[in-house]
Amino acid sequence: MYLLSDILGRPAADIDTPALVIDLDAMDRNLAVMAAFAAKHGVKLRPHAKMHKSATLAKLQMAHGAVGVCVQKTSEAEALAALGVNNIYISNEVVSPFKLKRVVALARELEALGGQLAIAVDSMEGLQRLAKAVHGQHCVIRVFIEIDVGHGRCGTAPGAAAVPLAAEIAGHPALQFGGLQAYHGRAQHFRSVAERGESIAQVIAHVLATTAALQAAGFEVPLVTGAGTGTFSLEAASGVYGELQAGSYLFMDRDYASNERDPAQPAFEHALFVKSQVMSVCADHAVVDAGHKSHAIDSGLPSVHGLPLDYANGGDEHGILRGALLPAIGETVWLIPGHCDPTVNLHDHLLGVRGGLQHGKVEQIIRVDARGALT
Amino acid sequence: MYLLSDILGRPAADIDTPALVIDLDAMDRNLAVMAAFAAKHGVKLRPHAKMHKSATLAKLQMAHGAVGVCVQKTSEAEALAALGVNNIYISNEVVSPFKLKRVVALARELEALGGQLAIAVDSMEGLQRLAKAVHGQHCVIRVFIEIDVGHGRCGTAPGAAAVPLAAEIAGHPALQFGGLQAYHGRAQHFRSVAERGESIAQVIAHVLATTAALQAAGFEVPLVTGAGTGTFSLEAASGVYGELQAGSYLFMDRDYASNERDPAQPAFEHALFVKSQVMSVCADHAVVDAGHKSHAIDSGLPSVHGLPLDYANGGDEHGILRGALLPAIGETVWLIPGHCDPTVNLHDHLLGVRGGLQHGKVEQIIRVDARGALT
Repeated sequence: MYLLSDILGRPAADIDTPALVIDLDAMDRNLAVMAAFAAKHGVKLRPHAKMHKSATLAKLQMAHGAVGVCVQKTSEAEALAALGVNNIYISNEVVSPFKLKRVVALARELEALGGQLAIAVDSMEGLQRLAKAVHGQHCVIRVFIEIDVGHGRCGTAPGAAAVPLAAEIAGHPALQFGGLQAYHGRAQHFRSVAERGESIAQVIAHVLATTAALQAAGFEVPLVTGAGTGTFSLEAASGVYGELQAGSYLFMDRDYASNERDPAQPAFEHALFVKSQVMSVCADHAVVDAGHKSHAIDSGLPSVHGLPLDYANGGDEHGILRGALLPAIGETVWLIPGHCDPTVNLHDHLLGVRGGLQHGKVEQIIRVDARGALT
Repeated sequence: MYLLSDILGRPAADIDTPALVIDLDAMDRNLAVMAAFAAKHGVKLRPHAKMHKSATLAKLQMAHGAVGVCVQKTSEAEALAALGVNNIYISNEVVSPFKLKRVVALARELEALGGQLAIAVDSMEGLQRLAKAVHGQHCVIRVFIEIDVGHGRCGTAPGAAAVPLAAEIAGHPALQFGGLQAYHGRAQHFRSVAERGESIAQVIAHVLATTAALQAAGFEVPLVTGAGTGTFSLEAASGVYGELQAGSYLFMDRDYASNERDPAQPAFEHALFVKSQVMSVCADHAVVDAGHKSHAIDSGLPSVHGLPLDYANGGDEHGILRGALLPAIGETVWLIPGHCDPTVNLHDHLLGVRGGLQHGKVEQIIRVDARGALT
């Protein structure tokens, strides 16, 4: 290993492999495109920081207009708050009394930083545990009721099931009803524009039914939050969503390139790459030094950037390349990871390159502050 | 997060989730079974430390008779050597001149610790790069020629192709011919005893053909090293292998439970678990807080320990449980990971529990020293 600081300012060619590299020019363009979209459509942007797990990138997104970030885990929120990110929404359920103490401590910390903590709930049990933890602790937590809009994971049933939860929230002065958490994760990766359109139309119908039930019971819904990089233009156009949680737009998963392009959705570029090196070559394949300990494969294998080669899984530390023209031992091969979020989580640092992957230089070393933050 | 030291001595019930937990009693039994097997069959054991990435566990294996450990990466070797592991074999090709400098520094470090470094090569190009790096550096590196015995990844063709490599090694006083690296990774997971038997018979034929070619050219083969947890009894019985590289036996992947049991192979117990908690329950499923950021899924999803529940992938941070009797919010669910190696690599620490998962106590915190060591 080199000292990380030694690589700053050096050519990208000198980066030891495998390494996770950001094309900073592409990332900056993605950042600007998303900021312009949110501004044009009058929706707030709260990118999901579970993707990059970096306080530096969270603050960069907030400097470009994001109102704050989402996270999935209490420990992710703690890692980002410790580095000054002051507006964090845990878009997920937390039910352990031990963790809920940490959630309350975090709420106080964010208030001290001039921001606020929000969290999702989807059950009376979870809500009462949260209320017990925050009682008498001199802070206010914004609470979103998560509804299952078709993903089939967490969330209450849409409609009247949200009413008793809103009533319970109203009974606790330390809790403030934030609105609805409504995210359909699987729909992000439905391949055709038509499928995504149909599923998000159902999502919106579920949100409207829930809002109507809450209004009939006397509860206004301050905000509907959700959406991801595959569908956010649909949620933005609905007039129902006030906040978008897309996160992958910054780096762009290889998997999203398999989606049929929706003309209403702005285009993003791949900005995250695994730099790898050819270590072995035989008659019908070459082997690179990047296997699934360097990139996540839950959304499929990486593609090879700029070369007509297919990547096959060679295990934890190997990738098998096949194609008409194989690279030679020692050559560099850039891979585009299938899914950025769990890929970033495998690395301690992201190396930001300016001026192109081939001839650029390392301008920035970005720490993955919440890497491995599971609790 | 709690301070890690706070959890020492506390009940396993107090471990925050998700967390990676070792059943120390089961691990100790696996350790003893493997040591007894190697002693009985007169073969050396050099477990693959890419599995646990821990100097503590490497030293524990060496205290139980292992001659040293294997690793896949230079940085893994560096992390273990820095903590006193003095006999390390990089069972993989290294071709970057920058990394080869590190390999040579490591060889000197291990010699100073009274041990030795070994490395695999599979090409003249790689061998000449290694020879150039070590030239005049006052250390000796043991070199194994890797042959492709059917896995289809790295390795020269079996037979005569190894001869020029052995001749080249003989021409460099700083290189010492160690023997043959012959590992068929995929065969470990062939389901039937018959398939594994046939494939390892072919492996052994390839090794014998290569040994014969080398002997005909005047080169003795000091050692044949290889084998994994799925097949090692076959390699051990061959009389051809002098050293076994099995690593997973210590923890046992869930995937190995799908192999048809070979009576000649000793039985191991699952000793590695992800502790998770139920965070949401609805009519037809429950959701736990452990997704594929807490366990690797390259060899399939985890199974649920001791409960008649099926685990489905719920994304980075969620698992979906289905079954006749669903657990309630807040309940603990223990998962058995599909593949231990990349699962351990997702965690900074392993919590060792003594006295059973339900009622035991945390006896040991084991750092994953080479976590994320990719280069």
